[in-house]
Amino acid sequence: MIEPTPPVAIIMGSQSDWNTMRHAADTLDSLDIAHDDRIISAHRTPDRMITFCKGARRAGYKVIIAGAGGAAHLPGMCASLTPLPVFGVPVESKALGGQDSLLSIVQMPAGIPVGTLAIGRSGAINAALLATSVLALWDDDIASRLDGWRMAQSAAVDERPIDDE
Amino acid sequence: MIEPTPPVAIIMGSQSDWNTMRHAADTLDSLDIAHDDRIISAHRTPDRMITFCKGARRAGYKVIIAGAGGAAHLPGMCASLTPLPVFGVPVESKALGGQDSLLSIVQMPAGIPVGTLAIGRSGAINAALLATSVLALWDDDIASRLDGWRMAQSAAVDERPIDDE
Amino acid sequence: MIEPTPPVAIIMGSQSDWNTMRHAADTLDSLDIAHDDRIISAHRTPDRMITFCKGARRAGYKVIIAGAGGAAHLPGMCASLTPLPVFGVPVESKALGGQDSLLSIVQMPAGIPVGTLAIGRSGAINAALLATSVLALWDDDIASRLDGWRMAQSAAVDERPIDDE
Amino acid sequence: MIEPTPPVAIIMGSQSDWNTMRHAADTLDSLDIAHDDRIISAHRTPDRMITFCKGARRAGYKVIIAGAGGAAHLPGMCASLTPLPVFGVPVESKALGGQDSLLSIVQMPAGIPVGTLAIGRSGAINAALLATSVLALWDDDIASRLDGWRMAQSAAVDERPIDDE
Amino acid sequence: MIEPTPPVAIIMGSQSDWNTMRHAADTLDSLDIAHDDRIISAHRTPDRMITFCKGARRAGYKVIIAGAGGAAHLPGMCASLTPLPVFGVPVESKALGGQDSLLSIVQMPAGIPVGTLAIGRSGAINAALLATSVLALWDDDIASRLDGWRMAQSAAVDERPIDDE
Amino acid sequence: MIEPTPPVAIIMGSQSDWNTMRHAADTLDSLDIAHDDRIISAHRTPDRMITFCKGARRAGYKVIIAGAGGAAHLPGMCASLTPLPVFGVPVESKALGGQDSLLSIVQMPAGIPVGTLAIGRSGAINAALLATSVLALWDDDIASRLDGWRMAQSAAVDERPIDDE
Amino acid sequence: MIEPTPPVAIIMGSQSDWNTMRHAADTLDSLDIAHDDRIISAHRTPDRMITFCKGARRAGYKVIIAGAGGAAHLPGMCASLTPLPVFGVPVESKALGGQDSLLSIVQMPAGIPVGTLAIGRSGAINAALLATSVLALWDDDIASRLDGWRMAQSAAVDERPIDDE
Amino acid sequence: MIEPTPPVAIIMGSQSDWNTMRHAADTLDSLDIAHDDRIISAHRTPDRMITFCKGARRAGYKVIIAGAGGAAHLPGMCASLTPLPVFGVPVESKALGGQDSLLSIVQMPAGIPVGTLAIGRSGAINAALLATSVLALWDDDIASRLDGWRMAQSAAVDERPIDDE
Repeated sequence: MIEPTPPVAIIMGSQSDWNTMRHAADTLDSLDIAHDDRIISAHRTPDRMITFCKGARRAGYKVIIAGAGGAAHLPGMCASLTPLPVFGVPVESKALGGQDSLLSIVQMPAGIPVGTLAIGRSGAINAALLATSVLALWDDDIASRLDGWRMAQSAAVDERPIDDE
Repeated sequence: MIEPTPPVAIIMGSQSDWNTMRHAADTLDSLDIAHDDRIISAHRTPDRMITFCKGARRAGYKVIIAGAGGAAHLPGMCASLTPLPVFGVPVESKALGGQDSLLSIVQMPAGIPVGTLAIGRSGAINAALLATSVLALWDDDIASRLDGWRMAQSAAVDERPIDDE
Repeated sequence: MIEPTPPVAIIMGSQSDWNTMRHAADTLDSLDIAHDDRIISAHRTPDRMITFCKGARRAGYKVIIAGAGGAAHLPGMCASLTPLPVFGVPVESKALGGQDSLLSIVQMPAGIPVGTLAIGRSGAINAALLATSVLALWDDDIASRLDGWRMAQSAAVDERPIDDE
Repeated sequence: MIEPTPPVAIIMGSQSDWNTMRHAADTLDSLDIAHDDRIISAHRTPDRMITFCKGARRAGYKVIIAGAGGAAHLPGMCASLTPLPVFGVPVESKALGGQDSLLSIVQMPAGIPVGTLAIGRSGAINAALLATSVLALWDDDIASRLDGWRMAQSAAVDERPIDDE
Repeated sequence: MIEPTPPVAIIMGSQSDWNTMRHAADTLDSLDIAHDDRIISAHRTPDRMITFCKGARRAGYKVIIAGAGGAAHLPGMCASLTPLPVFGVPVESKALGGQDSLLSIVQMPAGIPVGTLAIGRSGAINAALLATSVLALWDDDIASRLDGWRMAQSAAVDERPIDDE
Repeated sequence: MIEPTPPVAIIMGSQSDWNTMRHAADTLDSLDIAHDDRIISAHRTPDRMITFCKGARRAGYKVIIAGAGGAAHLPGMCASLTPLPVFGVPVESKALGGQDSLLSIVQMPAGIPVGTLAIGRSGAINAALLATSVLALWDDDIASRLDGWRMAQSAAVDERPIDDE
Repeated sequence: MIEPTPPVAIIMGSQSDWNTMRHAADTLDSLDIAHDDRIISAHRTPDRMITFCKGARRAGYKVIIAGAGGAAHLPGMCASLTPLPVFGVPVESKALGGQDSLLSIVQMPAGIPVGTLAIGRSGAINAALLATSVLALWDDDIASRLDGWRMAQSAAVDERPIDDE
Repeated sequence: MIEPTPPVAIIMGSQSDWNTMRHAADTLDSLDIAHDDRIISAHRTPDRMITFCKGARRAGYKVIIAGAGGAAHLPGMCASLTPLPVFGVPVESKALGGQDSLLSIVQMPAGIPVGTLAIGRSGAINAALLATSVLALWDDDIASRLDGWRMAQSAAVDERPIDDE
C-alpha cells in the first residue's frame, strides 16, 4: 500500500536547523496534520532542492515550510521553483541573531512571494499554524481542530502572573 | 442580486497606505481575483477592526491581506481575531524606512501567525501572489492563471541589460 | 466591603513578561501605590484585552502600564481602546534583544500615544515612577513620597567606585 | 493681571526642532490646552535648562514635553531635574533617521523616566495627546474634549481607499 | 570564426541592477578585460540561472561577478552551482539602503563562498578590480595593466582639497 | 600638605560602570598619570555633575574621561559644562550591546564635542591613552612614557598564532 | 621666511569629503587657529599617509583631524602611525547614512585610540572645537577665544521658537 | 633547501583572531594547500603590515586571507598595499556581534577591493574555499581536489533530520 503524500513539507537547510524546525513538526502533530521533514540545502545540495521543489506540486504537497539561517536562500529559491505557497522561517544566527536570516527571506523581489514568520521557535510554530489555516479553508475537520487549538490557547492564559521564585 | 463576498480582503491602516497596497489590488486584478479594499485602522478604528476581522470567515473571505506602517498592529491583531490566513505588508515608514513596520508585523509570538512579505510595493504585489497561490490549491482555473502569470514573468526577463541613457 | 480599584493597572502579554514587569510592581509597592497585575495577551486573549481596556476608565484606573515583547501590540492596542494614559515597557526579546519590542511600541501613528520606557527591567521601574509622577500631580502625599524616593536615590550614589574583586 | 502658568511646557533643543514640535503645539491648541514653547538646549544653554527644569513644578507646570535630536539629552536631563512627568519626542536626524535620537531618549536608566513617543511629527502630536490624557484625569472638561477629539479622529477614517491620481 | 568566451561574466538579477553593474563593466573595459553581461534572475528565471552557472566553467569563464538587491540570492546560488570564484555586489535597495542585499550575499554558510564587495557603485567597480587581480595572477599583461591602473589612481589624488563653490 | 589635582578625572554614571572604567584607571596607572575616579550620575546626581564639571578647569583638571551606558548623557552634559576636552566611553548595555550608549555619546550636536571611544573595555583603555597623548603634547616625560608604551605594545605582538588547545 | 607648521592638520580621504571637512576648517578659522588641509587616502595613497602621519609630530603638528567615509581607515591608521591625538570624523555615506563610517572609526581595538565625533557636518565642527580645547590647555589666548566662542553660542540660542512660514 | 612560499597567506590582527582564522587554515589543510599564518596588526604593528603586504607578490604569495574584528582595517589596508586578491574575514566582536567588523571590511571605497566573507567561522572556512577556487583556475589538481571536496560536502547532507535528544 502506498503512503499518500502529506499536505505539508517541512524543509530546512541543515541538521542544525532541526532544533528550530521541530517546533513546526510538533505543532502540526498536535493538529493531526501529516508532514514530511527533509534536509535540503540550497547551497550544498542545489540539485536536491531543484528536484524536490519543482516536483512538489505534482507529488501532492499543498504547502511548503522552509527554514534556514544566515544568507537564507532556501525559502526564496523554493518559491521560485514551485507555485505552491511557501512559508519561510528565519533561523536564529550566531553573530547577528537572525537579522540576516530574516532579511534574506522576507525581502523577496516582486513576483516570487515567501510568507515569512518570526525568527526562531515562534516562527516555526507559526508556520505550522499558518499552513494549517490554509488547509482549513477547504477542510472542515482541520478548521475545527484549528479552532479548538486556538480556543485552548486562549483558555490557557492565566489571569494573574505567578512568581516563580 | 447579491454580490458574493470576494475571496480576498485587502485592509490597510490608512488612506496613505493605499499607494502601497494598490499594487496588491492591481496584481489581483491582473489574475482576475476579486477583492475587497478597506481602510481599517487598528488604532483609530478598533471597533471596525474587531467587527470586520471577527466576521471575516463567516462573511466568506478566504484570505486577508493587511498593510500597515510604523508600529503596525493591524496584521497581527487581525490574525488574533480570525482563523483565516493573514498576510502582512510592512509599509515603508518615513524615519526608519519600514524597519519598524517589518518588525512589528513579522515578530509575532507563537500562536498567532502573520505571513509577512517584503517592505513596500514588492511586498504588496507578493501578498497578492501568495493569496492567489492559496486559492489555487483548490481551484484549477486560478492555478493555471497563476502558472501563466509566472511563465509570462519569466519570459519577460531580457537576456541582456540595456543602457537607458 | 468592596476593595477600591487601584490607580495603576500593570498588564502584560504573558507570564514570561512577569520577570520584567514585577520590577514595576515592586517599585509601586515601595512608593505605596496600589496596583492590579494582569496577564492580557493582545494576540491570544483579544476579548479579554478589549473588555479590560474599554472598561478601564469606568473601573476607576488612572494609568495603565503595559509590557510586551516581540511584535508587542498590547500597549498600542490598549491605548486605542482607552483614553487613559498608557505607558509601554518593551520586554527584551531573545533574537533581537528587544529592538523589535521597542519599535513595535514606540512607533505609534499620530493619534494614539504610548509613552514608552526603556527595554527591560529599567523600563519597568521607570514606568512605575512615571505613573507615580502622574498621580503626584494631584496628590501631595504621593508627591512627597516620590520626592523622598528620588532624594534617597540620589543619596545612595557613592562618591567613589569600589573594586568588587 | 498675571497670566497663569499654562499646564504644559513644550521645550526643544533648537529652533530647527520647531518644525517637528509645532505639531505638539498645534495639537494642544486644537484641544484648547494652554502651553509655553521654549528653546532650551541641554548642551548650548545648560544653565537655562537647569533653571527652567528645577523650577518647573513651582512655576505651576504639570507636564513637560521635550523634543531633541541626535544625542538628545534634553528630555532625560529635564527628567532628572524635575519630578514632573516628562514626555520625550525624538526629532528625526539627518544621517541616522532619528534612531540616535530615539535611543538617546528612551533608554534611560532605572530611576529617571522619560515617556518616549515616536520619531518626528507623529511623536510630537502624540506627546500632546498624552499630556492631555494626563490632565484629563482630574479635569472633566479636558476629558470630554479629548473624548471628542478621539471620536472625531475615528469618524474621519474613510471606509474605502481613494485613488489620488 | 568563433568568439572566445570572455574571462568574466557579469550577471545581475534585473535590468534595474544595470545602473549599478555597468560600473563593473566600465571598469573591466578600462582594463581591457572582456566580459559577458547577462540578466539572470534567481527568482524569475531559475532555469536560466541553473543552466548558466552549472555550465560556466565548461564554457570557459574564469570569474563570475553577480549583482542583486533585496533578498539577493543570485550570487550565493551561483556559487553553489559552479566551482568558479563568485564575487557578489549588493545593489542598493529602496527601503533598507542595501543592508538586506549585503546580508543576503555576505552571510553565506560554510561551504559555499561569495567574495562580497561594498553596496552599490563602489562595489561594482571593486568586483571588476578583484576579478582582474585574480586574472593577473597568471597573466603578466593583465598584471601590468592593473598595476598601471592602480598607479594612475594614486597619482590622481590631489594633495589639497578644492572648494567647488 | 595639599595633594595637587591630578590631570585626569575619570567619571562614570554608576558603580556598575567601574568594571569597564577601571581599565582606563589601570592604563593611566601603567603610564604613571595620576587620576581621580568618581561616580557622577547625570540623572541621579545632577547637582554633583553640575558642580564637578563647572569647577573642573578651576580645580586643575586637564582632561575628563566620562563613561556611561544606555541613554548615556554624562559625557555630553559634562562637555556642555566645561571647556576642557571630554572623552566619552560607551559602556556595554544589556539589551542593545552598547549601540544605545554609543549613539547617545557620539552623536553630539555641533558646538559641544565629545571625543568618543569604542564600546566597553577597549574604549576605556583608549580613553586613557588619548588623554595621555594630550598631556604628552606639553610634557616630554609623558611623551616618552607613551612612546615606550606603544613600542612595548608593538613588540608584544607575536609573529605566529599559537593554538591554545 | 619659513611658515611655521600650524598646530592642526585636517586630513581627509578624498576631495568629496571636503564638503564635510570644510566645516572643521571654517570653525578653526573662526577661532583663529591655523590649520593644514590635505587629501590623504589610506587606500589610494598609502605611502602619502605613512609619510605624513609618521612625520607629523616631528613636523610640529599637535592634533590631527581625520575625516573619512565607508570603511573609513584613515583616522585609525593615522593613529597607529603617530602618537599625536587623532580625532575622527565619520563622513556620511550614501547607502548606510554613515553607520559604516562611524563603526569603522570608533570601534578601534585597545591600544590605538581615535576620539570620534558625530557623523557629518556636526562632527567636523566638533572635531575643530575639541582640537581647540586641547590647544587651550596650554595657551591662555586660545582658551579665552574658545570661552568667547562658547559664550556667544549660548547667547545665540533664542528663548522662543519662530515660525518660518 | 629553501621552502617555497606557500600560495596563501593567512594574516590576522591578533592572537585572539586565531580561534576564528584557524578554520581557514584547517580548510586549506584538508584541501592540501600550503599556507603561511601570521599575526599582523594594522594598528599595533603597522610596519610589519607595510613590509609584509608590499612584499607579498614578490615573495610569491598568490592570495591573502585577512581576518580582523571591530574597526577591522587589516584587510583593506593590505589590499591598498598589494595588487594580490585579498579576502577579508570579519571576526565576531563582543559588543556588536561583528557588525562593526563586517562594515569596516566590506564597505571599501571604489579602487581598492576586499572580497568579504561571512562573520566568524563560516567566513574563515569560505575564505579558504574562495582562495582555493582562485588557485584552481590554473591548477587542475587543485581543481579536482576542490570538486571532490564539494561533492563530499553535498553527499554528507542527510536526507532527514535526526532528533539529538
